[in-house]
Amino acid sequence: MSSGFRTFNPRQNAWNKEVYIPTTPRELDTKFNLLSEAQSEFGRLAVTRRADFLQAIHRSLSKGKEQIKLFYLKESGLSSNRFETEWQRTLDTIEIFEQQLRDESFQKPISQTFPADSVSIQKVTFPIGPVLVLGSSNFPLAYSTAGGDTISALAAGCCVVVKAHPMHAGTSTIVASCIIEARKEMNLPEGTFTHVLDDGIELAQQLCSDERIQAVGFTGSFKGGKALMDIANARKNPIPVFAEMGSANPVIILEDFNLEKCTSTAEKLAHSICTDAGQFCTKPGILFIPKGEVGNSFTESLKSFVAKTEIVPMLHPDIHRNFEKRKSEVAAIPEVKFTSSSQEQKGIEGKWTIAETSLNNFLQYPTLHEEVFGPFSLIVTYRDAEELKKGISILSGQLTGSIFFEKQSDLMEECMQILTQKVGRIILNDVPTGVRVVEAMHHGGPFPASSDVRFTAVGPDSIFRFQKYVSIQQKNRT
Amino acid sequence: MSSGFRTFNPRQNAWNKEVYIPTTPRELDTKFNLLSEAQSEFGRLAVTRRADFLQAIHRSLSKGKEQIKLFYLKESGLSSNRFETEWQRTLDTIEIFEQQLRDESFQKPISQTFPADSVSIQKVTFPIGPVLVLGSSNFPLAYSTAGGDTISALAAGCCVVVKAHPMHAGTSTIVASCIIEARKEMNLPEGTFTHVLDDGIELAQQLCSDERIQAVGFTGSFKGGKALMDIANARKNPIPVFAEMGSANPVIILEDFNLEKCTSTAEKLAHSICTDAGQFCTKPGILFIPKGEVGNSFTESLKSFVAKTEIVPMLHPDIHRNFEKRKSEVAAIPEVKFTSSSQEQKGIEGKWTIAETSLNNFLQYPTLHEEVFGPFSLIVTYRDAEELKKGISILSGQLTGSIFFEKQSDLMEECMQILTQKVGRIILNDVPTGVRVVEAMHHGGPFPASSDVRFTAVGPDSIFRFQKYVSIQQKNRT
Repeated sequence: MSSGFRTFNPRQNAWNKEVYIPTTPRELDTKFNLLSEAQSEFGRLAVTRRADFLQAIHRSLSKGKEQIKLFYLKESGLSSNRFETEWQRTLDTIEIFEQQLRDESFQKPISQTFPADSVSIQKVTFPIGPVLVLGSSNFPLAYSTAGGDTISALAAGCCVVVKAHPMHAGTSTIVASCIIEARKEMNLPEGTFTHVLDDGIELAQQLCSDERIQAVGFTGSFKGGKALMDIANARKNPIPVFAEMGSANPVIILEDFNLEKCTSTAEKLAHSICTDAGQFCTKPGILFIPKGEVGNSFTESLKSFVAKTEIVPMLHPDIHRNFEKRKSEVAAIPEVKFTSSSQEQKGIEGKWTIAETSLNNFLQYPTLHEEVFGPFSLIVTYRDAEELKKGISILSGQLTGSIFFEKQSDLMEECMQILTQKVGRIILNDVPTGVRVVEAMHHGGPFPASSDVRFTAVGPDSIFRFQKYVSIQQKNRT
Repeated sequence: MSSGFRTFNPRQNAWNKEVYIPTTPRELDTKFNLLSEAQSEFGRLAVTRRADFLQAIHRSLSKGKEQIKLFYLKESGLSSNRFETEWQRTLDTIEIFEQQLRDESFQKPISQTFPADSVSIQKVTFPIGPVLVLGSSNFPLAYSTAGGDTISALAAGCCVVVKAHPMHAGTSTIVASCIIEARKEMNLPEGTFTHVLDDGIELAQQLCSDERIQAVGFTGSFKGGKALMDIANARKNPIPVFAEMGSANPVIILEDFNLEKCTSTAEKLAHSICTDAGQFCTKPGILFIPKGEVGNSFTESLKSFVAKTEIVPMLHPDIHRNFEKRKSEVAAIPEVKFTSSSQEQKGIEGKWTIAETSLNNFLQYPTLHEEVFGPFSLIVTYRDAEELKKGISILSGQLTGSIFFEKQSDLMEECMQILTQKVGRIILNDVPTGVRVVEAMHHGGPFPASSDVRFTAVGPDSIFRFQKYVSIQQKNRT
């Protein structure tokens, strides 16, 4: 634990002046001693009051918008437009859960009676208990302090402990103070929402192993997510960790794809690869392109659109360093051709890079199958259907898989069939970025894309991660 | 791996003559090579055809009933009446899942369209993949080869690999052959259902770590369940293990309980403790009884009813040995009074035992908090509400908790509140044994009662353990 740490301003390529003090063990103790009682009280709160609490958070955040924006911009380097989109998405998510809680049919107990034995049984939903949320680096709002994990856990009636992402400790602190204000306004116990700070991994590890924590929400690297899973499983009482750990998001162009659509599709994909320096968990990272006219046309278009892209700063020097490292690992593989931005780099801009290789070469090098987090995509050219199917089959679990095609065909069906085993969302004729916060959305995927293939991290169904059932069986007086 | 093993006949206190040969690595290889293709085919089968398959299993089992019964009786020592009950329950479970699959509203995809962007999204249910089922010793039918885990996994569209419980390898083999007959009748691929034999733990461990297995269903000891969880988590791709690992099932008698009802309640509890040598996961193992008139009356009644119970053989010498071992661990604790059957023991009968201690003593010795599998219950006498609450709060996760009371009261509410954090089912004024296979039933509980508090092992909702979602997002042609 450091004595104090700063955040980084990617646009100015300089450290911000504010110093954040990591939560001390004594402070943590005081906060955690409030958890059990708060959980007992908050967990019993009427569902409509929980909805009121979400509404109060919405209101309180809205009041704090300008200050949040100030820190968001200076701690992430993301654009003002991007802030507005993410801001709206964060508020929308709060509203969705608020509405869900106000819907009377939601989580109505399942009741059955057995008159012959004078027995009735009710299956009732309960919160799983206090949830630890570890925010993501790339969504300082929508997947962080007041993001989907926090809001769905609160909606389920769970107390939440947020460990701020150190890269945006300032944003997190302001967002947390808005939640705490709403908590006070609602007269909820102090332990309902806890915010802690740390710039290393020790505090997260300690929190994950604390017996008072009953579940974990995490969005970040495979290494981080897997470490938390291992800690959670090694506890005396193992708990579920919902880790969303990234993905290469394969995109398949089938040979029958309309040549005339190649340009518009390439433009969309270029945008999907490069926007916000490609720092999205659903960024298309591997493109399976057919050899021949359609493939060539597509590749040329893609490269020309990417080439028009201005490079922008990445979120943090660490992320930029990791981007360069991963690119150099790919560059070290034989028969991989690189095309990169030639724009002059002033700070930690992520230079867009399109790599190209053959499917045969791709099969031989596992490092080519893994995500490169940043404005990077690998074009893999395939000769025929057999090669393509081999290429998809070799991939590990992914969040998404996209297919561009013209007509239903056996090959298209076969690709779909393989993808249902590999991904959490299949996208037909569109790009994977832009995850809609709706009921039909499943955001997750087979390990290692996420830790539990059965749950979504986005949309109203994400509440199922943080609740449990208890049946209450009653022998009625006769 | 042994070269061959036999099952034990508890009634005759002798080994049965049949020799079972453990599945060889080569046989296993052949069987497992069929799994992926079978999963792909079975997983795509129309839901109504899955229902037909369950119906065919029902039919095929019914034809085999007499032979199954023969082996069931000679391998378990359980009574003919018990066989009939468990048999009916097994068939009922198959029917429930069949009906669930035939219900058109069941698992209808969630569909949403977004006309502004010409986008539609469907969230569709898919089987999680091949499931390994490890049957229980105490339910040779209802929680074994054609039990709840197997049937819910098949209903979800998952291929199933059953490793027979070695204590009833014969019963399992016949039941498996019935399932295989139904599978053939339906023209389903061979890998849809696989049956393997082994008398040690090595095969189960190997199967649990096989990358083709995607989930595990287990009912048995804590040691066995936890070992499987650890193996599953150490895999390259961790998978969920649904382990139901036993429970002490606390029963609370509140002081206001009607003195006149003590006799009938004691009779019911005596039955619940002793039936089938108490070999139920929901057997009431700890009874919190108030000091004073109600408590004394209850305790005396209970002991007198238990004393009328004929002792019956346990399932296996190993289980009997473990029962004796656990009893001696409890007996070694100071200030624990024992009352046991004085009936002469001829073989591996489980002698009913009622132990008694004070709550204060109970608090000090963790071994008193754990399950003693067999016809045993520990009476813990408490002085007041504070003592009682301490006693319940110290318990780890349980499948059930029961409260006997006369009127709603603060104490009753407080007990309920504590139990919602400790158990998967609360029973008011009734015994915990006799788990109904219905939608309102939640059979599971916080760790270590089960491995995942969010899922039930009994009833139609147990299907959720073995399925996942994939969203299919389509950009419609404009």
